[in-house]
Amino acid sequence: MKNHGAPNPPLAILLFALFTLLPLNPAAGAAHAGPLTYLWPLPADFNSGEQTLSVDPDLALVADGNGGKSAIIKDAFDRYKGIIFKRGGSGGRRSLGLERFAAGGRKGKRSASYDVAGLKIVVHSGSEELALGVDESYKLFIGKSDGQSIVWEATIEANTIYGALRGLETFSQLCVFDYGTKSVQIHKAPWFIQDKPRFNYRGMMIDTSRHYLPIEVIKQIIESMSYAKFNVLHWHIIDEQSFPLEVPSYPKLWKSSYSNWERYTVEDAYEIVNFAKSRGINVMAEVDVPGHAESWGVGYPDLWPSSSCREPLDVTKNFTFDLISGMLSDMRKIFPFGLFHLGGDEVNTDCWSSTPHVKKWLAERNMTTKGAYEYFVLKAQEIAISKGWIPVNWLGGGVCPAAVAKGFRCIFSNQGFWYLDHLDVPWEDVYTADPVEGIHDASKQKLVIGGEVCMWGETADTSDVLQTIWPRAAAAAERLWSKKEDISGNITLTALPRLHYFRCLLNRRGVAAAPVNNKYARQPPTGPGSCYLQ
Amino acid sequence: MKNHGAPNPPLAILLFALFTLLPLNPAAGAAHAGPLTYLWPLPADFNSGEQTLSVDPDLALVADGNGGKSAIIKDAFDRYKGIIFKRGGSGGRRSLGLERFAAGGRKGKRSASYDVAGLKIVVHSGSEELALGVDESYKLFIGKSDGQSIVWEATIEANTIYGALRGLETFSQLCVFDYGTKSVQIHKAPWFIQDKPRFNYRGMMIDTSRHYLPIEVIKQIIESMSYAKFNVLHWHIIDEQSFPLEVPSYPKLWKSSYSNWERYTVEDAYEIVNFAKSRGINVMAEVDVPGHAESWGVGYPDLWPSSSCREPLDVTKNFTFDLISGMLSDMRKIFPFGLFHLGGDEVNTDCWSSTPHVKKWLAERNMTTKGAYEYFVLKAQEIAISKGWIPVNWLGGGVCPAAVAKGFRCIFSNQGFWYLDHLDVPWEDVYTADPVEGIHDASKQKLVIGGEVCMWGETADTSDVLQTIWPRAAAAAERLWSKKEDISGNITLTALPRLHYFRCLLNRRGVAAAPVNNKYARQPPTGPGSCYLQ
Repeated sequence: MKNHGAPNPPLAILLFALFTLLPLNPAAGAAHAGPLTYLWPLPADFNSGEQTLSVDPDLALVADGNGGKSAIIKDAFDRYKGIIFKRGGSGGRRSLGLERFAAGGRKGKRSASYDVAGLKIVVHSGSEELALGVDESYKLFIGKSDGQSIVWEATIEANTIYGALRGLETFSQLCVFDYGTKSVQIHKAPWFIQDKPRFNYRGMMIDTSRHYLPIEVIKQIIESMSYAKFNVLHWHIIDEQSFPLEVPSYPKLWKSSYSNWERYTVEDAYEIVNFAKSRGINVMAEVDVPGHAESWGVGYPDLWPSSSCREPLDVTKNFTFDLISGMLSDMRKIFPFGLFHLGGDEVNTDCWSSTPHVKKWLAERNMTTKGAYEYFVLKAQEIAISKGWIPVNWLGGGVCPAAVAKGFRCIFSNQGFWYLDHLDVPWEDVYTADPVEGIHDASKQKLVIGGEVCMWGETADTSDVLQTIWPRAAAAAERLWSKKEDISGNITLTALPRLHYFRCLLNRRGVAAAPVNNKYARQPPTGPGSCYLQ
Repeated sequence: MKNHGAPNPPLAILLFALFTLLPLNPAAGAAHAGPLTYLWPLPADFNSGEQTLSVDPDLALVADGNGGKSAIIKDAFDRYKGIIFKRGGSGGRRSLGLERFAAGGRKGKRSASYDVAGLKIVVHSGSEELALGVDESYKLFIGKSDGQSIVWEATIEANTIYGALRGLETFSQLCVFDYGTKSVQIHKAPWFIQDKPRFNYRGMMIDTSRHYLPIEVIKQIIESMSYAKFNVLHWHIIDEQSFPLEVPSYPKLWKSSYSNWERYTVEDAYEIVNFAKSRGINVMAEVDVPGHAESWGVGYPDLWPSSSCREPLDVTKNFTFDLISGMLSDMRKIFPFGLFHLGGDEVNTDCWSSTPHVKKWLAERNMTTKGAYEYFVLKAQEIAISKGWIPVNWLGGGVCPAAVAKGFRCIFSNQGFWYLDHLDVPWEDVYTADPVEGIHDASKQKLVIGGEVCMWGETADTSDVLQTIWPRAAAAAERLWSKKEDISGNITLTALPRLHYFRCLLNRRGVAAAPVNNKYARQPPTGPGSCYLQ
């Protein structure tokens, strides 16, 4: 017999769903307790019980605290309600189908009979500011108001609305559609979860220069990031291949978009930033200088050392830095996040040493090309700082230990493991890479503010970007959120089944996450089978 | 210089968008007329002019006729309005971003100054019935009410609401966001389009047995089908690997779903049918018998010839046919479409000739296994007919000419060209395959009611199904909709640029359509570049 027999799912916790479908088999239904908690990323601390609760499809929001009335909370609650009750058959409101099968006779429950009728969200702070280090902690309680009560309560309590958003995601992952009762259930209640992230910066980079990603697709990426509790979208907007962004002060820059339609207006960028904010995600923009900037000169050829030698940007001209300053002034109005990325990587300075006027300029200043590179980077940093940004630059591989030793802060993105375009990296390697590896001094470890996965765009466009990101980005997301000691050990037992489950959760939510097991990322499934096993 | 210079898009019609961005260059802006009309599939008849119109982001619906007030029309109008005005920067309503750049000073237009302020939709019939052969013709007029008027009108007129839906799709494809004026524009006005499909049946098959596809993903597929004017989703629900569908009369059948969560309730199926109907798409369900049905016996082992020999279904037992009848009665309540697919393909009858009680039954009736196969298929057909369905069966390759010669109707799905899991078929081969090939008698050609592409699921799950379907399915969609004489000739000139454009349109709408140019379908882009050229 092949793999289609009586299902043998790896997810013991929810097994009883199969049996409650079969009223003729009253003995079944007890075997739902299991050792694993299907949450991703794993919360910092949690306790659970043995009871199964039903959740009212008319789940009410009870908002409290200074931040409870925020539109961000209301919108997020509605969004998650849509996710939790996505199925048509969940509950009484849409029971037309069931009524047509009245002979088979299983009607949806009425509201009064659901165990969980409302979700209370208490947010202490009224601020909607989403800065680096914003408090993302939350408590999630699903239990009885007291030992005697038959009334169940579900409460999220957080200091900020962004902590509450993280709690909502966790709540949504606890809510599972049960095909027997045709209702949404919470297993292993009561729950008491106290959660907070290990790192403040949990990022994902996208690259819209090698391939343009439509607004709609960037939104899909952001939405999916929130499911794994990422909190920074690092937007590598521009590179040498194309310049898709509108810069009002220098309107010819986006002349080198790939076409008239592969562009982002200022309003598009705002929309991205606001869409991300409503999911608790900051947008860190990147303007990569002085290399990776050849496309700029299509609109402003003076930026090139010469028309035949076009990279790095001309270090000798005031115009170069005036333009960078003007661009950053425009961008400052769009991107409120405190960090701004200035690139600075992979700079080949041959054009500087071979172009006569640059060569002369260097000689006059007794400056090497290396010195000119440092001059450029520092000058760009000064401009970013003058706009109120903390500048971020690319550094070489494995450099965090050296950087923090000098007192710099570091964002970890190991090219060997966390560059998602490296398709031959299995999920285990993504998972076990740790941002503080090689740093033993606790005070220095604190300078590592987090890490990010990078989705470079050379071979990732709308057709395959989501399946390249997921599920491996989730492995990094758990590394960045969960306590290190809780996600070590035998990860094949403790993480893999949960990762399979999370991949299938992404699929259910419409995200094209690829199979977990394939040797190469984003490969198609090798044959028929269950999402939970592939 | 590489491919990032001044863009050289293949879409001359819209080129002026680049130039209107640059008010310093008043000479530009005239070169927007072009030979190609970027519509997919190509309408039956159309005329266009040379003018460019702006479209009000507060576009009003003016519904008229018996069917104009249908909720399907209202919903579709709202849906398309969302698609057309997806960008944040389109028009005055969301101009916050522009105001922050007041120095650069370009405000959104006020309503009064848009050329097209409303869309009139006239639907003559009030019926919402969506049967095979429903009238899908429509007229789309975008012009001045008379020669002197300065007022532009946009009108869709159709006999049925489903014709109006096709007209809305065409209208949406004419509306293009212009990055210069930051408004949605219609080029080459006035337009007069008279359109209707060449074939009544324009289908796409999905397979939810080899891999379960979540409801959300099936909806994504259906939504994308409507963009190419497909009108039948052929749902190959069940196969030997898994049985995901709830059958209330035989509740153990879905025991062989892959897991407790890879299932469709009756309500899920309704939701699919209703979601599809609101996009003018019928759902033809398939129950493939007597082969491809091994999974059924997990819940009801009596359906197997024996526990060690499990396919085809046991032809000797009344229970087999009672169950099929009960299942089809249940399904009749879900699937209103007039056609029902009974599979019938790839039946290996070895189990029948090797299992003693079946062997005995055959001998008693002096029946060969081939005869028993025909007996089974005919009996299943009788059951389907008794429920009010016209049964459909799989037939061998290239069999349409023989079938129509005998007076049968035929749906074309050439395995060599229209099976989307055959990844080595380039778009040109999909495009040039014709449903009536090999049939020369016009009266016989009429018996070919259309065709369908088949997305078999062995290596297509949520992660890659959309990129496998698109863009090649679009090639078949145009073959099925447009007049044969209009889509012959040099397709590299007449179809390829439009197909590139349609692929990018799918991307903009969030659909993961793969590059057009790759030798193998669903391959990632081979390097950086424009959507319109890959």
